[in-house]
Amino acid sequence: MSDTLTPPGTAPNPSPDSAPHRLVIVGGGFGGLGLAKSLQAKGLEITIIDQRNHHLFQPLLYQVATTILPTSDVAWPIRNLFKSRKDVTTLLDEVTGVDTEAKRVLLKEGAPVGYDTLVLATGARHSYFGHDEWEPFAPGLKSLEDATTIRRRVLSAFEEAELTSDADERDALLSFVIVGAGATGVELAGIIAELAQRILPPEFRNIDTRKARVILIEAGPRVLPAFPKELSDYAETALKRLGVTVMTDHAVTAMSDAGVTVSGQEIPTRTAIWAAGVTASPAAGWLGAEADRAGRVKVNPDLTVPGHPDIFVIGDTAAVEREDGSPVPGLAPAAKQQGQFVAKVLKARLAGQKQDDKFVYRHQGSLATIGKRSAVADFGRIRLKGALAWWLWGIAHIYFLIGTRSRIAVALNWLWSFISGRNSARLITQRDIHSDKR
Amino acid sequence: MSDTLTPPGTAPNPSPDSAPHRLVIVGGGFGGLGLAKSLQAKGLEITIIDQRNHHLFQPLLYQVATTILPTSDVAWPIRNLFKSRKDVTTLLDEVTGVDTEAKRVLLKEGAPVGYDTLVLATGARHSYFGHDEWEPFAPGLKSLEDATTIRRRVLSAFEEAELTSDADERDALLSFVIVGAGATGVELAGIIAELAQRILPPEFRNIDTRKARVILIEAGPRVLPAFPKELSDYAETALKRLGVTVMTDHAVTAMSDAGVTVSGQEIPTRTAIWAAGVTASPAAGWLGAEADRAGRVKVNPDLTVPGHPDIFVIGDTAAVEREDGSPVPGLAPAAKQQGQFVAKVLKARLAGQKQDDKFVYRHQGSLATIGKRSAVADFGRIRLKGALAWWLWGIAHIYFLIGTRSRIAVALNWLWSFISGRNSARLITQRDIHSDKR
Repeated sequence: MSDTLTPPGTAPNPSPDSAPHRLVIVGGGFGGLGLAKSLQAKGLEITIIDQRNHHLFQPLLYQVATTILPTSDVAWPIRNLFKSRKDVTTLLDEVTGVDTEAKRVLLKEGAPVGYDTLVLATGARHSYFGHDEWEPFAPGLKSLEDATTIRRRVLSAFEEAELTSDADERDALLSFVIVGAGATGVELAGIIAELAQRILPPEFRNIDTRKARVILIEAGPRVLPAFPKELSDYAETALKRLGVTVMTDHAVTAMSDAGVTVSGQEIPTRTAIWAAGVTASPAAGWLGAEADRAGRVKVNPDLTVPGHPDIFVIGDTAAVEREDGSPVPGLAPAAKQQGQFVAKVLKARLAGQKQDDKFVYRHQGSLATIGKRSAVADFGRIRLKGALAWWLWGIAHIYFLIGTRSRIAVALNWLWSFISGRNSARLITQRDIHSDKR
Repeated sequence: MSDTLTPPGTAPNPSPDSAPHRLVIVGGGFGGLGLAKSLQAKGLEITIIDQRNHHLFQPLLYQVATTILPTSDVAWPIRNLFKSRKDVTTLLDEVTGVDTEAKRVLLKEGAPVGYDTLVLATGARHSYFGHDEWEPFAPGLKSLEDATTIRRRVLSAFEEAELTSDADERDALLSFVIVGAGATGVELAGIIAELAQRILPPEFRNIDTRKARVILIEAGPRVLPAFPKELSDYAETALKRLGVTVMTDHAVTAMSDAGVTVSGQEIPTRTAIWAAGVTASPAAGWLGAEADRAGRVKVNPDLTVPGHPDIFVIGDTAAVEREDGSPVPGLAPAAKQQGQFVAKVLKARLAGQKQDDKFVYRHQGSLATIGKRSAVADFGRIRLKGALAWWLWGIAHIYFLIGTRSRIAVALNWLWSFISGRNSARLITQRDIHSDKR
């Protein structure tokens, strides 16, 4: 067991007789997997710790929430991905802290795990900007359970509207409020509008689901704020064509059982969804490290934590700047690139070479869908919108999925949806089990 | 609205000007759907009430519990199945009682629903034979949630065994006890043994999953008691070959956190599954009707309830006898046939003709799989076992699934499992949300 991290440029201890170098990765998201997949070296032992047994393909999670894809199409058991990598051990447990003195990760269930190098890639949760009391009324979308909760609530609202004889209650049940018009908010609004407008109408007898209102609320001046204005404008027009009410420059000021208050006006609703903001996981607290307002650890240019050359923080948990001083966005490719960067740094360290000293983010482009036939794509100079962007989006996402089975399954489910107008996963599950009535 | 049921042989009121005949079906299982699918008549309005939004293909539910199939492959939204049937209204609600005087079904959320004819097809739940306190330790398998609970517990046991350093705890975690060796118990035991023996070993570093024990407990003298002895013997041998410990003539006498007590001897385990018995839904209580020991309503030969010619009870909720006096088994085909029989009776009544007066069950055969490559099939004189029976089982089940998409999806998932040895739905979800720790 090497007690100290090999400093850059110093001879490492790679001889097979010596104790292995123990790399502990906390988090099996895009960052953690990007690292473990790119790093395999003699004398290196990797442990991945995650509180879930699965890696989640976040970019398609909104399709689970909106009945298009089943949960198993967007999630893979982490340990199965490393089946043939005998150097990788996977542990399902919750990290409760890091003892940086003794160099151990503390776990909720299992014994502490010692490390020589630690990488924290624990992601982010949704943030209610100091209004955590809103969470029961407006779940966010980060986990499979979040997705099935949203799916249950959206579908249950139509079911309850079909049952009720109270006209006001019916209107509230048929109002869907999505807070935040980033990619997730726009994608959710588009598909819920499609459900109400095209998929559900022939199945209900007492209500006309086409009368449902889908309201997208954004505090800023336009939807998809991370995209060029031209594409934001296109997206807004496309959303309106689907029947979505877009309320930009409107902030949520209160939430309750009765509805969502937006700039002083109450919108009665039984189904609100939070897509407005995220906060980093508590990694900064574990380390006693400095964090930005969103809770992200302020890391060095090589993604190590100031004062801890043996600890890296990557992905949504890290505050990293681009060359122009703007923040690296919280996107899957950014986390993946950071994981691959750390792999390169560690490879160099293990080989006793000087490593790259600065992570440089390469933006590969941004994509967002609007309903089932339209999308926007921004690749810097090249900007696409409409059906072409939608096909590109679909192909890109199938390409980025893990494994042949998922690719075939997602492609088939999309094809089926496209041709038949039936979605594959319109299930209400865990009813009455959650704290919410529905 | 016709106030009285048209008695057999009496002129009905089929003229289009008159009020429609209101048929209310409670339960969207094989019985309820079998009825609604076979019955469409002028002047007839059908309402299907179910507490779930989906019809569940029970015969494959054990494959959801054992990671082979995703939930959405075995469940379909009931209202979607009747999309083009304008005479069918679907309501998602829980029935709380039946007012046989006023001829209304009472609901938990919605207003009471009036009927002219009522069909109760509400199925069964697992029964702990007076030991309901065992339920937290040994969930049964009747709903999608039951299946994902069992999936979570089985997968979590392996995960916790990988984490623990306590040898006794590890042994208890790697002991899986299945109570009841009917088709469901045998099928669960076979697949869990396959998981431990063939699928999981390359993925764990601290434990050898092949050392897991799968123990199948049966109070009677042989497994698959509904099959001929020859096939029971074959199944027992096949189970043993997969590494399952078969304990026939053993009864469970106690259950706790620590384990399952069988004929006085405690088997330490963290994962027990109940596949031993069922009890009918509370339909008998709603009607104040006579029930047998399993809670099933004792119906007339035409499946009506004594004293209520306008109320039918079918499927697992009804106690029906075969011609030889033996009970009609609680199988999907039996429920379906009863639904189709009631459709015929009602068609005749609506047309003012005399209806069939006696339901006759036609047994189409029994099938059960043992692990992934073997099965037994009993068609009376023709009995099959081994790989041929397994292929037959697979083809029959794909044939009986609803819809093209499910057939393709299930076939692909099976093919994938067969070829790659990877199962499609190895997800631990809803962890910490249930009352159970795991």
